[in-house]
Amino acid sequence: MPDGAGDRSFERNVTRRPTAPKALLFDVFGTCVDWRTSVAREAAALGLPGERVADAWRARYQPQLETVRSGAREWVPLDVLHREALDDVLAELGLELGEAERDALTLAWHRLDPWPDTVAGLSRLKRIFIVAPCSNGHIAQSVNLARHVGLPWDAILGAEIARAYKPDPRVYLGSVAALGLEPGEAMMVAAHNGDLDAAAQCGLRTAFVARPREHGPGRRSDLHAGAGVDVETASFVELADALGA
Amino acid sequence: MPDGAGDRSFERNVTRRPTAPKALLFDVFGTCVDWRTSVAREAAALGLPGERVADAWRARYQPQLETVRSGAREWVPLDVLHREALDDVLAELGLELGEAERDALTLAWHRLDPWPDTVAGLSRLKRIFIVAPCSNGHIAQSVNLARHVGLPWDAILGAEIARAYKPDPRVYLGSVAALGLEPGEAMMVAAHNGDLDAAAQCGLRTAFVARPREHGPGRRSDLHAGAGVDVETASFVELADALGA
Repeated sequence: MPDGAGDRSFERNVTRRPTAPKALLFDVFGTCVDWRTSVAREAAALGLPGERVADAWRARYQPQLETVRSGAREWVPLDVLHREALDDVLAELGLELGEAERDALTLAWHRLDPWPDTVAGLSRLKRIFIVAPCSNGHIAQSVNLARHVGLPWDAILGAEIARAYKPDPRVYLGSVAALGLEPGEAMMVAAHNGDLDAAAQCGLRTAFVARPREHGPGRRSDLHAGAGVDVETASFVELADALGA
Repeated sequence: MPDGAGDRSFERNVTRRPTAPKALLFDVFGTCVDWRTSVAREAAALGLPGERVADAWRARYQPQLETVRSGAREWVPLDVLHREALDDVLAELGLELGEAERDALTLAWHRLDPWPDTVAGLSRLKRIFIVAPCSNGHIAQSVNLARHVGLPWDAILGAEIARAYKPDPRVYLGSVAALGLEPGEAMMVAAHNGDLDAAAQCGLRTAFVARPREHGPGRRSDLHAGAGVDVETASFVELADALGA
């Protein structure tokens, strides 16, 4: 990191640890990309009620991950969980869709739209920091999404590296170890305080980026950083400003 | 892949499988980067006989990997093997170097120079194909090298994903599986026929890129592709031409 304005800007924002991290690890769904708008659009193109499908699909996400986190089920890639959940969602909502269309719609999660600041901010941050996803998406999904959006990752880390799902500590610690770093040399960036709390418990630094429209209008949780978060901004561009990138 | 000249060019070069691959997996040491010149320069800067150190260091590489491939030793990252081999090399050549300098010189393998065509060719290939290293380098080394050189990888695959060393089939098959592809949907790119033979036995397509100066002057092996290799070129730019990228 260069000396000067950037450095001072970083110091102003970081309350717990004064020196700069070497790597930034990013949550992806909701933090880098607007999954709801994208999935709803693809569902609507198939004649389905887009937002209802998107919301019901995502509502199954944490309970599904919990079956892996609890040990009840072995780790499987997110495509498998998404495909199973789609069958449940369509049954619950009483909607018809052919098998081939179900397979194709599952891959909507590989081609989500970025938030407007995502690519510009990441590109600046990459100039100074190693940038990598620490997502529950598997490698194939992460690569396809990165190529679709233009996310300039240095590596694909996260769930598949650890064969576990966040907030399992193995996901954060395995991602940091793969970069040859100590936890305190990495900063987790997410729009979700639960993700940041788990990363902080592993010794990572934390940055909250507000994404108030992730679930559409009327969001009431995760509007601001929780206690102990190192940096809070409203976009990846502001994060680049705050970290001197 | 666009129709037209590129497509025909690809057809002309590919003898075994006519359709285009989805991903290109690259050997790195020797194929993407000129390890010998780079390591020799860093050794010389420490007062050592650069080329002798580089050659003796690399000569220990395959015997070291074999200790892991044979099961005599658990997988460890390449930094560990490089650091151990450096001690042996310096002892063999009767050279003195402090511990801190040995640690620093080991990281020379994280900052190797590319061949002149590497970045330009990869950048073109990335427009059409997923591009990733399938190297015996670990993730941290691969990320640092990519950032040093400007290698635009979509993901870091290879040895650490599989916790094995090439030509162990698990490295090729694990890398392909991580992308959600079948072996025939990926093409291994290397300057070494042994690497390509092993990849072909796993079902991957193969491209040989000649790097006649990898070991300095007077190379006598791996000057041309062996039997059964799908594509042979003299640079990554020519490979982009051949694959229509």
